[in-house]
Amino acid sequence: METQSYAKTAVNTVKRLGNRGHYDYGTVHTIINTAPVLHVSFNDPEHPFPVVLPMLGCTGDFANPDADPKEAAQDIYIHGYVSARMFRKGKEAGEEGVPITVAATHIDGLVLSLTPFHNSCNYRSAIAYGHATLVTSPDERLYAMRLITDNVLPQRWDKSRIPPTKAELDSTSILKVRVESASAKVREGGPSEDRADLRDAELRARVWTGVVPVWLQWGEPVPAEGNEVGEVEGYIERWRLEENRRGKRGAYEAVEKGK
Amino acid sequence: METQSYAKTAVNTVKRLGNRGHYDYGTVHTIINTAPVLHVSFNDPEHPFPVVLPMLGCTGDFANPDADPKEAAQDIYIHGYVSARMFRKGKEAGEEGVPITVAATHIDGLVLSLTPFHNSCNYRSAIAYGHATLVTSPDERLYAMRLITDNVLPQRWDKSRIPPTKAELDSTSILKVRVESASAKVREGGPSEDRADLRDAELRARVWTGVVPVWLQWGEPVPAEGNEVGEVEGYIERWRLEENRRGKRGAYEAVEKGK
Repeated sequence: METQSYAKTAVNTVKRLGNRGHYDYGTVHTIINTAPVLHVSFNDPEHPFPVVLPMLGCTGDFANPDADPKEAAQDIYIHGYVSARMFRKGKEAGEEGVPITVAATHIDGLVLSLTPFHNSCNYRSAIAYGHATLVTSPDERLYAMRLITDNVLPQRWDKSRIPPTKAELDSTSILKVRVESASAKVREGGPSEDRADLRDAELRARVWTGVVPVWLQWGEPVPAEGNEVGEVEGYIERWRLEENRRGKRGAYEAVEKGK
Repeated sequence: METQSYAKTAVNTVKRLGNRGHYDYGTVHTIINTAPVLHVSFNDPEHPFPVVLPMLGCTGDFANPDADPKEAAQDIYIHGYVSARMFRKGKEAGEEGVPITVAATHIDGLVLSLTPFHNSCNYRSAIAYGHATLVTSPDERLYAMRLITDNVLPQRWDKSRIPPTKAELDSTSILKVRVESASAKVREGGPSEDRADLRDAELRARVWTGVVPVWLQWGEPVPAEGNEVGEVEGYIERWRLEENRRGKRGAYEAVEKGK
């Protein structure tokens, strides 16, 4: 089967270091859906600078909820709690929506070379461009709330108090980005070096080169003051430990893959 | 002594949940300088969506290099490797520079409440707005390269091959953002709950609530194929272990502080 990808256009083509560019749904959507936070940017006509907001969200498809994000085009649903401004703009803009850019970045390691000029980072980043509208359908809002909740911590929706009350549903803003174009950029491996530095025995004898891998580590949970459940529920602990394993493994694999 | 702060203006005032807003140099600059990556946004007239790029950078002041970023206004220097576009725009724009927004975000924990509606994250985010220009002075470029290198890993500049060759210096783009306005937003503590949920004994008996702290964990370094230094240098290991301690401590302190 052919790998499904975003078309390369003037908007999304990775220009600098194009060999690091990826366009397939699997790479782009996985980076977005595993990022701890998305950076969302748009323009506010009353504001001289672009607005950038850290927000929670993930990919989805309300019409085809069982579609695999690794195989299919997706929308991006964003929990709008922190931005009243953007949603007002969405409303004013009507059907077309607000032009918006969503960025997701993971840092996988610090790459140390013989000279600062060749220092680098291992990273995976995805950028999606699209138009954003407020989700008004109650069914689609409920779909997105569940999607975003379970994208952060699988099963949490069903394991906690649902459904939301009408007041909760009414006061939650969900933004839907129809993705028009997207791409990813991935840097792996160890440092590259200048030939002259590699010939410098004194330099090589004193400067350690390599990669310091890095990942998000989820620590021992801290119960809330009002918590009455003695032990942390199993699905939370399994998720936490698996995330730590996955993060660590990914950071080390990034070093090897690029070799 | 009075705490030095960014003035609250229409541009930088935290509108949503304003009690989470911070404007003092210490909070804003520390969030920027300890972020593993900055998200930089600007508009490209040829592009229908805002551009967002993950980049490396930190605060500094070339005229007063010994000024404490916690006490003084600062510029932001950004290593421009990944963006030829932005710098061309900077050149075209001349002295005024390109309007630019710099965002830095740390996630400190996942906050789990009895109901998905009250789930949240502990986080620290900073946003700075300013005009960006290309740094043309060789002395200032060298200052910024050292600043950015040592901001990631203290002492690395002096411990590796310096100075840069003329070719290296010429091919490194450094962007300087004159910060006109900035603010930070910080969320700490445990979950908030609805009164009705707190009265629901069955719910409280089955749903674990609290915070799962999270931080960046730096793993055992992996030597490069060409590395000839047997043991990882001490200043690298000390930095790595101290970063891990600081990250973990900060994530747990964020839970307690908000209580």
